[in-house]
Amino acid sequence: MFSAQTYQDRRTVLKSSISSGILLFLGNIENPVNFEHNPYYFRQDSTFLYYFGIQEPRIAAIIDIDENKTIIFGDELSIDDIVWMGRQETLKEKSLKSGVSETLPYAELPKYILKAKSANRKVHYLPPYQSSNKILLSDLLGIKIAELQPSVEMIKAIVKQRSVKEAQEIVQIEQAVNVSNEMHLLAMLTAKPGIKEYEIANAIQHLAGNKECGMSYPPIVTINGGILHNHYRLNTLKNGDLFLNDSGAETAMGYAGDLTRTFPVSSTFSTQQKEIYEVVLNAFENAQRLLKPGMKFKDIHLKASQHLVEGLVDLGLMKGNPKEAVQNHAHTLFFQCGLGHMMGLDVHDMEDLGEQYVGYTEEEPKDTKTFGLKSLRLGKALESGFVVTVEPGIYMIPELIDIWQAENKNAEFINYDKVNEYRNFGGVRIEDDFLITNDGYRLLGNGLIKTVEEIENYRKEHLS
Amino acid sequence: MFSAQTYQDRRTVLKSSISSGILLFLGNIENPVNFEHNPYYFRQDSTFLYYFGIQEPRIAAIIDIDENKTIIFGDELSIDDIVWMGRQETLKEKSLKSGVSETLPYAELPKYILKAKSANRKVHYLPPYQSSNKILLSDLLGIKIAELQPSVEMIKAIVKQRSVKEAQEIVQIEQAVNVSNEMHLLAMLTAKPGIKEYEIANAIQHLAGNKECGMSYPPIVTINGGILHNHYRLNTLKNGDLFLNDSGAETAMGYAGDLTRTFPVSSTFSTQQKEIYEVVLNAFENAQRLLKPGMKFKDIHLKASQHLVEGLVDLGLMKGNPKEAVQNHAHTLFFQCGLGHMMGLDVHDMEDLGEQYVGYTEEEPKDTKTFGLKSLRLGKALESGFVVTVEPGIYMIPELIDIWQAENKNAEFINYDKVNEYRNFGGVRIEDDFLITNDGYRLLGNGLIKTVEEIENYRKEHLS
Repeated sequence: MFSAQTYQDRRTVLKSSISSGILLFLGNIENPVNFEHNPYYFRQDSTFLYYFGIQEPRIAAIIDIDENKTIIFGDELSIDDIVWMGRQETLKEKSLKSGVSETLPYAELPKYILKAKSANRKVHYLPPYQSSNKILLSDLLGIKIAELQPSVEMIKAIVKQRSVKEAQEIVQIEQAVNVSNEMHLLAMLTAKPGIKEYEIANAIQHLAGNKECGMSYPPIVTINGGILHNHYRLNTLKNGDLFLNDSGAETAMGYAGDLTRTFPVSSTFSTQQKEIYEVVLNAFENAQRLLKPGMKFKDIHLKASQHLVEGLVDLGLMKGNPKEAVQNHAHTLFFQCGLGHMMGLDVHDMEDLGEQYVGYTEEEPKDTKTFGLKSLRLGKALESGFVVTVEPGIYMIPELIDIWQAENKNAEFINYDKVNEYRNFGGVRIEDDFLITNDGYRLLGNGLIKTVEEIENYRKEHLS
Repeated sequence: MFSAQTYQDRRTVLKSSISSGILLFLGNIENPVNFEHNPYYFRQDSTFLYYFGIQEPRIAAIIDIDENKTIIFGDELSIDDIVWMGRQETLKEKSLKSGVSETLPYAELPKYILKAKSANRKVHYLPPYQSSNKILLSDLLGIKIAELQPSVEMIKAIVKQRSVKEAQEIVQIEQAVNVSNEMHLLAMLTAKPGIKEYEIANAIQHLAGNKECGMSYPPIVTINGGILHNHYRLNTLKNGDLFLNDSGAETAMGYAGDLTRTFPVSSTFSTQQKEIYEVVLNAFENAQRLLKPGMKFKDIHLKASQHLVEGLVDLGLMKGNPKEAVQNHAHTLFFQCGLGHMMGLDVHDMEDLGEQYVGYTEEEPKDTKTFGLKSLRLGKALESGFVVTVEPGIYMIPELIDIWQAENKNAEFINYDKVNEYRNFGGVRIEDDFLITNDGYRLLGNGLIKTVEEIENYRKEHLS
């Protein structure tokens, strides 16, 4: 945990931006796998972590703006619990570390909410993503799940605050990134012909675990990098494959890292692999240089797309004017997703609170229709203190190529004959994490090898 | 998956034991960790696996007894899904492997249920344990979550069927046990002074992962074995500690192993450790020999308790007549839990269906009040084909000792002065998995070292 003062200060800022009512914060539970008492690992809700820092299931908190009170609700261990789970720090003790002196049994929460509602006071709450909290909110408020109405006022205030990272949060994120760096170096040493994809996933999770880190998301470790969210891991690596590793660590406090590297299973890139890789790398480096306060991330995304097109024109896969190609979304045959997203206590930071608030503004809302842009999670102007990923890529998806070609879609920009030579190419993505600073950006962590030469040299040196 | 015939045969047996109505089976979803699209690993519901075998989120099935139809409900991938997740086997193809030829879109499920309800037909369903299925059932049936009424007829029929394992299920369980054996040998090599508990957890998970297995439950790897469900893993091992490892693998098809070994962090047991260990081992071996069809597991539990008391009397921690001590529950100061449980597709097999049906009978229901017996998950007579764990233990719990001593509880059977010499001893548990056969029992798996001599020799040979 950070200091009690940290959590108090954060709550003070939040309180000052909400006019009246009660702010309700629900922690997560231990979610059952195949029966109630066989749970998945516990992960506290990120907003709860941000304002209270307590990593314990089945607790909740309220900040009562009207009465200027903060209360944590939860149950102390019974002697039965202590027999089964051992003596632990009490909730009272944990709450004090969060700067909260008042705790009440969990059963008092419904009463508190009922009383507030009877007095016609507003109860602010966030959009629930775990089903248990959907049920809980429905019960607490006496509203059907489908009719829950999260507080936009509360969401906006929290997004504003959590978007700008404190120095101590940056330290945590860099810790996550540095462990992620090690995971990626290990993957580069583990990946060789005959190895299964899941062996690499297991190895990097083992490494992270021994540094007291979890995974900030299910790792994508695949020889089919063209599949964007590929969680199939039973393939065997062979010479000639391109291996894509999109994985990041999560620190014990909950902060994420998120990196991607793509490298050949053979000791060196093939010419085709190297050419595509360098197109992506060039787009990456140009995008990185554009990071600064005031710059709209959507514009960086479009610039990066243009750099990808320029490279693909050079290779003969595309043709015509790159700017016009991007305006016509022709690049989305190869780059179907977004350039990046916010990162912090969540790998897609605050995604549970709603992309429209985290990544966009009311004046410039998200384009939810256009293929490509509808997958861009972040479009708005950057601010100092934001942490973002930059992750351009080129993905060859046979199904998509076939559909576009059958429609002759964007034929003025795409050389389908040439593209078909790449249909089993797979995909290349390069991703790093950046802090937006007053005058630009700073790469988070100690840096991870990225050029063709660096990757080939590293593997040559370390693979026997 | 097993053969289509297997699933068809299982469904035929089930159908024949339900008089009328519709049997509704809900698969599990991908449960969110910290936002909707960041999920925990997917684990299909065990009953769904048993009757349909399909490992895919957000599908459901019905067996319509009245109309003699079996339908799987779920959605095929859209082109958007294929772009993101790659082309996969269709639900239709998967369903055929399960012997089901009729599939319908997921949205047809509510209509089917509504129609059946309108016709006053009974819809049988199981107790939901994941919150998402609580919400789904409530929506499908138009009943409040608190008012859901799972079908006892369906539960009983399924428990009867799943309790007796098929030969091919035993093969799966033995595969899980054999991987678990390897995990335990690795732990014995990994555990040494200076190592953290979580490093052992990570090492055994890594080993299991590379054999395409998961964990059948969160491993208990601890130097505080006196804490029964201890998931704190930050302690550093030191000479003199007793290390308890309760962990088991789960095969890709979902079958569990569940083993416990306890061993000294030093190369050899101390005299005190060895003495307590051999008391537990003696109880274990005597309990094992009692396993056979017709024998009530509760009686084996009580016999094992008596053997523990006899050993503790020999060591001076207890006194008086062991049989009377057990009748007075005096042994529960040291053995607070149950001797074992059913195992199969769940480590506590079918615990979601209700212990009263899985472990007990209407004639002899569970004792839910008495300390000790209330934690015994299995009490009823064994049958050929059951798979059970046997796991006696002795646990020193300072908090419990203090409470009993303050009340002078069972003072005629307990030497509190002597017991207090052991208050920081920790705990010893020994656990193996057994198949009940026609004439007795068979240890599952290839066997794992268990005696003091075997463990000391193994570690001496392999630790540098």
